[in-house]
Amino acid sequence: MIEHVKDEHAKGSWLTYRPDIKILDCTVRDGGLINDHQFDDDLVKAIYQTLVAAGVDYMEIGYKASKKIYAPSEYGPWKYCEEDHVRRIVGDNPTHLKISAMADAERTDYKEDILPADQSVIDAIRVAAYIHQIPVALDMIEDAYQKGYEVVMQLMAVSVIQDKELGEALEALAQSPVTAVYLVDSFGALYSEQVRDLTLTYLKALQGTGKEVGIHAHNNQQLAYANTLEALIVGASRLDATINGMGRGAGNCPLELLIGFLHNPKFRLRPVLECIQEHLLPLDGQMEWGPRIPYMLTGQLNRHPRPAIAMRKSEQPDDYVSFYDQLMEEE
Amino acid sequence: MIEHVKDEHAKGSWLTYRPDIKILDCTVRDGGLINDHQFDDDLVKAIYQTLVAAGVDYMEIGYKASKKIYAPSEYGPWKYCEEDHVRRIVGDNPTHLKISAMADAERTDYKEDILPADQSVIDAIRVAAYIHQIPVALDMIEDAYQKGYEVVMQLMAVSVIQDKELGEALEALAQSPVTAVYLVDSFGALYSEQVRDLTLTYLKALQGTGKEVGIHAHNNQQLAYANTLEALIVGASRLDATINGMGRGAGNCPLELLIGFLHNPKFRLRPVLECIQEHLLPLDGQMEWGPRIPYMLTGQLNRHPRPAIAMRKSEQPDDYVSFYDQLMEEE
Repeated sequence: MIEHVKDEHAKGSWLTYRPDIKILDCTVRDGGLINDHQFDDDLVKAIYQTLVAAGVDYMEIGYKASKKIYAPSEYGPWKYCEEDHVRRIVGDNPTHLKISAMADAERTDYKEDILPADQSVIDAIRVAAYIHQIPVALDMIEDAYQKGYEVVMQLMAVSVIQDKELGEALEALAQSPVTAVYLVDSFGALYSEQVRDLTLTYLKALQGTGKEVGIHAHNNQQLAYANTLEALIVGASRLDATINGMGRGAGNCPLELLIGFLHNPKFRLRPVLECIQEHLLPLDGQMEWGPRIPYMLTGQLNRHPRPAIAMRKSEQPDDYVSFYDQLMEEE
Repeated sequence: MIEHVKDEHAKGSWLTYRPDIKILDCTVRDGGLINDHQFDDDLVKAIYQTLVAAGVDYMEIGYKASKKIYAPSEYGPWKYCEEDHVRRIVGDNPTHLKISAMADAERTDYKEDILPADQSVIDAIRVAAYIHQIPVALDMIEDAYQKGYEVVMQLMAVSVIQDKELGEALEALAQSPVTAVYLVDSFGALYSEQVRDLTLTYLKALQGTGKEVGIHAHNNQQLAYANTLEALIVGASRLDATINGMGRGAGNCPLELLIGFLHNPKFRLRPVLECIQEHLLPLDGQMEWGPRIPYMLTGQLNRHPRPAIAMRKSEQPDDYVSFYDQLMEEE
């Protein structure tokens, strides 16, 4: 007879129903990094309607980026998420779906460009910062909180943060008004055991504060979905995904895989399949995302995907061996 | 300060060097299911040379299939692996790479078609069987063992085997002369916690026999690599992979990801990248493999990928919604 082994850190098995889980879809925000956020309104509307129908909790519709740094002649509206643009898509958003926008530390004029929440259809601000930007991030968090938003924190590139700095950052965030802190594998470099370890670290640091832990994974090593499940199983409750995995470079955790796993009655798969079939497949040839060898290589080396993205846009997008040799040379 | 959490079942971390690990590449055997094993000799030779250069332990070069069931007019030589065909590729195989062939229960004339080992360049026979074929498999194992081969067991579609039957099968295999038993996720349906649980079950059933546990994963839910790592971490030491993940339907665990993870000095990544670039990319448009929505759907439903493969060959290969509706109707 078979004896099953219990995992002491698991918050339930894959059959457990976890009503605390909240999915944030960042198809437009992260996918927009492929095309400088030049999406047609029709596509953004289709994604909005899909997410409403699928029961997703949050839609991250873009960035609140500085127009001084990013010239509006070069970027589409989802780089800035101005109020009238967002309302053109969601109206007054009379749905359960919350609208979120990301503000990157040192890349945003947050004091001026983020309106008071009662003048905005945006519900939540996600502050994104690298570890050295934590002081700036804390001011951004306070600003958005005082303006009346839900605020969450995206601590970037955790795979290159040292333990001591991470501990201090989490301590500061535990005392801030954020409702959640996301574990962010910017380079798609983390293995599941590292995700498990880090998720437990985040949970412990935030214990007793009521704050939640989230996960934002990249698919460089085909681990975005697996790592999202790993974080979920040990207690993360805020999960990032994108439709068909659309996102910069290797892309993100595919929403359709995640909904298939959750078996949660609030989420529905069919609208997501419809959106992929009708709206994302036609982008083939115009926009590229998803796991490929160059992204695998930067992920394995725990490096930013920048050189891989450049290589895919070069005249030798399939010269994997030269790219590998070049990376090895640089190590 | 951060406290790290120890996983009581882990056989080491991702930094541990595990000299017991053996990789079996089944690119030709599993990839051949896409094109009825109609590979040119040049391609099979290139794969052989790649695996030698990459330090891989076994090459599964094809099936020992019955010509009465599979007409030679319809299939390429790797469906049968006749001695002269195999020697055309590997000569006397003066390398460390062992050659393996798969024999499917009830689809092979094993008594006649498998030569005594001293007359063959094939080193190992992998017997594949569904749970109800275990009695046949045990006779095949004995036959190949008596002929002088290393014999390993591929127990198919474990995601639909009941605990009681699995326990009995493992008990019988523990007493057989196989050197390893593979956990086989034929439908690409298993989640990592199930793989962990099953791997520990297999290890326990084989404890004290000196037999090893292997893993053969499929990529329907983009979990082939993640699940292979999960099995590895808790103690599996025989790992299946294919170059660029080539294999039926959603494909298998990509060899290049696995070698990147192992950090084992015996394995080398560069020859695998060369092979992909020079030999597999040119197959694009002729052969299709890798994760796609229809395979995800059959995986999520724990079903054989057959309907998804048929759908991809139909006139509506991207009609995900109709395919989903059809599967739901059948559930």
